[in-house]
Amino acid sequence: LQFPQGSPIGVFDSGFGGLTVLKELQKALPHEQFIYFGDTARLPYGTKSRETIIRYTTQNCSFLEGQGVKMIVIACNTATSMALDSVSLSIPVIGVIDPVIKLIASKRIGILGTRATISSGVYQQKIHALIPDAEITAIPAPLLVSLVEEGFIDHPMTHLAIHEYIQPLLLAKVDTVILACTHFPLLKDLIERALGPSIQVIDPALATAKAVTQKLLELNQLSDEKPGNSIYYVTDDQDKFQRLGPQFLGLPIPQVNLC
Amino acid sequence: LQFPQGSPIGVFDSGFGGLTVLKELQKALPHEQFIYFGDTARLPYGTKSRETIIRYTTQNCSFLEGQGVKMIVIACNTATSMALDSVSLSIPVIGVIDPVIKLIASKRIGILGTRATISSGVYQQKIHALIPDAEITAIPAPLLVSLVEEGFIDHPMTHLAIHEYIQPLLLAKVDTVILACTHFPLLKDLIERALGPSIQVIDPALATAKAVTQKLLELNQLSDEKPGNSIYYVTDDQDKFQRLGPQFLGLPIPQVNLC
Repeated sequence: LQFPQGSPIGVFDSGFGGLTVLKELQKALPHEQFIYFGDTARLPYGTKSRETIIRYTTQNCSFLEGQGVKMIVIACNTATSMALDSVSLSIPVIGVIDPVIKLIASKRIGILGTRATISSGVYQQKIHALIPDAEITAIPAPLLVSLVEEGFIDHPMTHLAIHEYIQPLLLAKVDTVILACTHFPLLKDLIERALGPSIQVIDPALATAKAVTQKLLELNQLSDEKPGNSIYYVTDDQDKFQRLGPQFLGLPIPQVNLC
Repeated sequence: LQFPQGSPIGVFDSGFGGLTVLKELQKALPHEQFIYFGDTARLPYGTKSRETIIRYTTQNCSFLEGQGVKMIVIACNTATSMALDSVSLSIPVIGVIDPVIKLIASKRIGILGTRATISSGVYQQKIHALIPDAEITAIPAPLLVSLVEEGFIDHPMTHLAIHEYIQPLLLAKVDTVILACTHFPLLKDLIERALGPSIQVIDPALATAKAVTQKLLELNQLSDEKPGNSIYYVTDDQDKFQRLGPQFLGLPIPQVNLC
């Protein structure tokens, strides 16, 4: 094998949101080493163009490849939808979209994501490829990213923004809503309450963690010796990452490196 | 003279906000040529660290210098507060802070800005240097940037956010509020209404345009021949800039170049 079982797994996001994916990866794969890379100097990605997102994603994946990772998880819906197909490496690269598409059993589907993710149409195309008669209502919800990053989780402004963004989903009578941005799991309870008990809310992080586990098994690269560990790199402001990150990860972050 | 009168003036911002300063510059200096540079691939600056803001500002000023400008206006409070002192060029560089400080006649002053601008303490220090017993209440209002960029100008969420951010200003009984972010002039009417008629709201753009005019006169570099003109450069997504920019500039933007 080119990459030994003990090699780390690279996890990349524009900043903080990918930590909600890392959280599920750490739970599912307690013996793995992870290198998390947050591109905090250039965040957010969700409001930027395809060309720029591809350039940033390619650069960040090269950085992780250079760290000797055995696999890369693009833990960002924007980067997955805009740039996954443009990344060409000798190691497997897994995004957050394909794993969740396979789980969808409904035909009335709502999607909440960044402007870039929604306008890419990738979720819509992949769902239609599997369920040709699916009725999809895809809503860009960019303010939810800012609200989460500013720590306004249970705040009247956030309630108002969620109320606004879900109206078209309720009108379309969806029965399933995909949280197509890695910031939104922090708002999952609020969104579930606003949508009501008959609508299922799906966070792709869990499906992604399962897909990564499956891939490691297939490749016989599952680490089972050492206890797991995570190393963190950001491109700006380690202190802020260390301060705000735990809200996304659900655990303290002992040390952050600047690169 | 190293730079002829007909040379353009460079105007730099992280993205869109600086257009509210360009608007006043165009009004005050109808015979000048302007080169506007918006670093849309890396916006926003207001949530990033001093080191990163200095790096970006230095790079962008070098780009403008390379275009042969006779002067640079840093039309961004974050870049002015964090990086103006680090820019060292052979042409004059004017920020948005010094011009407005000279106009302040009050002792009970409120400031609304980005996290970076407020935490830099530059406004506070400069006001205290001039008015030692000034009582300053400085409030980071980061969500107002996102709300403006998403076009939620007269929206319940924006009312709620303004209401929230101005509470400490009302409690401190300020009589003057500085809009220390170039996005906030778009919310000036709303902020004025929320503060009430006894509080004066100051937009530094006008003072900056006066300071630039004064400097050009001093240096005998005021252009008075050609009709004015503006050229626009952005680092990402010309279409979006052309679409959203006019809201900030108050005029259509005929063409945008990517660099």
